[in-house]
Amino acid sequence: MRAPLPRLQHLLRRRRLDALLVSQPENRRYLSGFTATDHSINESSGFLLIPKNGRPLLLTDSRYQLQAEREVVGLDVVIYQRGLQPLLKTLLAKLGVKTLAFEATYFLHAKYLALAKLAKTLTIDLSTFDSQIERLRLIKDADELAAIKRSVALNEKVFQQIYPTIRPGQTEIDIALALENAMRLLGAERPSFDTIVASGPNGALPHAVPSHRTLCLGEPIVIDMGLILAGYCSDMTRTIVLGTPDDHTVDLFRLVRQAQKAGLAALRPGVSGRMVDAAAREVINGAGHGAHFGHALGHGVGLAVHEAPSLSLRNRAQLRPGMVVTVEPGIYLKGWGGIRLENMALVTEQGHELLNRDATFLDL
Amino acid sequence: MRAPLPRLQHLLRRRRLDALLVSQPENRRYLSGFTATDHSINESSGFLLIPKNGRPLLLTDSRYQLQAEREVVGLDVVIYQRGLQPLLKTLLAKLGVKTLAFEATYFLHAKYLALAKLAKTLTIDLSTFDSQIERLRLIKDADELAAIKRSVALNEKVFQQIYPTIRPGQTEIDIALALENAMRLLGAERPSFDTIVASGPNGALPHAVPSHRTLCLGEPIVIDMGLILAGYCSDMTRTIVLGTPDDHTVDLFRLVRQAQKAGLAALRPGVSGRMVDAAAREVINGAGHGAHFGHALGHGVGLAVHEAPSLSLRNRAQLRPGMVVTVEPGIYLKGWGGIRLENMALVTEQGHELLNRDATFLDL
Repeated sequence: MRAPLPRLQHLLRRRRLDALLVSQPENRRYLSGFTATDHSINESSGFLLIPKNGRPLLLTDSRYQLQAEREVVGLDVVIYQRGLQPLLKTLLAKLGVKTLAFEATYFLHAKYLALAKLAKTLTIDLSTFDSQIERLRLIKDADELAAIKRSVALNEKVFQQIYPTIRPGQTEIDIALALENAMRLLGAERPSFDTIVASGPNGALPHAVPSHRTLCLGEPIVIDMGLILAGYCSDMTRTIVLGTPDDHTVDLFRLVRQAQKAGLAALRPGVSGRMVDAAAREVINGAGHGAHFGHALGHGVGLAVHEAPSLSLRNRAQLRPGMVVTVEPGIYLKGWGGIRLENMALVTEQGHELLNRDATFLDL
Repeated sequence: MRAPLPRLQHLLRRRRLDALLVSQPENRRYLSGFTATDHSINESSGFLLIPKNGRPLLLTDSRYQLQAEREVVGLDVVIYQRGLQPLLKTLLAKLGVKTLAFEATYFLHAKYLALAKLAKTLTIDLSTFDSQIERLRLIKDADELAAIKRSVALNEKVFQQIYPTIRPGQTEIDIALALENAMRLLGAERPSFDTIVASGPNGALPHAVPSHRTLCLGEPIVIDMGLILAGYCSDMTRTIVLGTPDDHTVDLFRLVRQAQKAGLAALRPGVSGRMVDAAAREVINGAGHGAHFGHALGHGVGLAVHEAPSLSLRNRAQLRPGMVVTVEPGIYLKGWGGIRLENMALVTEQGHELLNRDATFLDL
């Protein structure tokens, strides 16, 4: 059984819950080792039913039976033929569950209505169980850190393999494809998000979708990429220029890099996400570009590419050793383009450890 | 404004609703033309707020502002700085909304709790609005059919480009990569789902993830692939054999093909999804393989790769002209492998029109 399961069962007993239904995909993987992904929230590849004592269950359908039996350790695999609901009815009665919690932050309201009806029939007290497993996931253990470092290293290897091949005249899609192709050829499970290659004016959209636009000399090209390896995500952004950047581009690049360094300098245990964001934002505000930095400074990374803690003005919680975050300031100018620089860092007892080694252009 | 919007507003007035909040990504695209996708249900790229009269609104954040302004026609784009909730508070009050509906089948319970609180503050009557837009999407108009046909044709072009290059010794991942690479090089937005290449025993998992297993002569290789072009999905499965299949494989292949033909023969307006599924399933049951066909016969395809109507024993609703479905029987034998054959078809006034032309191995 994976280490977090007994801790979770302890938590259930303390909260006087007979069982917990886990629907969130990364939580499911974290607790069970089951690697299947969901096509969408409406097409789940399985749920965990975790009683306060005894063996947890992985509930899934026949399409995933072999994979589940192959992958999960310490849980029993139970197959539902007609969806989750009828199986739950049987199991909850059999296990004598009278208090059940579910993950409201990853449970559709329509499914909740059906679950509430079932709970009523079985006189089960239903409650929400929010962010508790995510809270366990906040602090990465040694195995998780090793996995994240391997994921970061592979992501850099992919970038370094493709970066020297990028030429004017290629399209954004060409580059995105080459990167995603290299990811999987080098052993990644998949990209951790859709790779962004945003050249020239397209870079003004922080979440641009790669287009058929051809790359030109001298313009900034934002490349935001990440992959999943053994379940764990990486996430890195470089802004490159083919040929020689003009002074304006260099000035903005240096400003963003200075903001990133200020964010990293503030990153240590005991400070809040808000304070780290503010440290970087101050640099950009000071240069008059505050209005052109419209997103948060960073986010946690682990089984999910976006998870807690966020480095944003809204997060007042203190950072702790073992947390992994991105630090990614950016400046976006409508009609001109964008510059974003993103590294990942681990919060340590002493301060932080930079997880990226790639220094492409960071000396500009 | 897109054609379905006035129909939807008419529906709102009939149901005495002042406004509808749309959260489901394909519904959002269907009604607005906004092509952004969501990283996950927790990271929406936007919502539609559709009043019963007047101009609908697309609510999104600054990352998507340029894209939204570029893409949507007939809607106003409004940016939220601090998430949906605070903006909704202002807008609902300004619009004088007193009855609001939301999509419970694509709305997290936790977000519902916040919305319910807001509704209470503003004395708004909150209700669910389920499957109404999906119901509009069931019947494809001429533009949608043209887009689906282009998507199917491109998907076949991709398969036909890669199929002759497949050799023993390549891995499942090699083939999946080559297919997904070709998809995007030939102009697809993206795969409509993670491409499945499942060789030999791996084919016993209907949703297998491509692995580093190398392809061998004589074994069945299930290739299930689809792409998105101009928003519309395609979905096709071929089972191929490198070299010469043995008699057992040929027999099973013919049985699955016979089941597919029986399903297609039953496909016409007025029959239920259940009856079409039964027509194909009977063939497989008759050969003693009923227990090895664990999924439904097919599903609708459109903006989503899995949408209504389903061809399953649970769907008793009548099929109507303009619906597009897959017909994909399969047989899965643990330890041996699988065979699945999938084509798409349009329900017509007269019966159906097969949308696939690729006949690789279908003459076996």
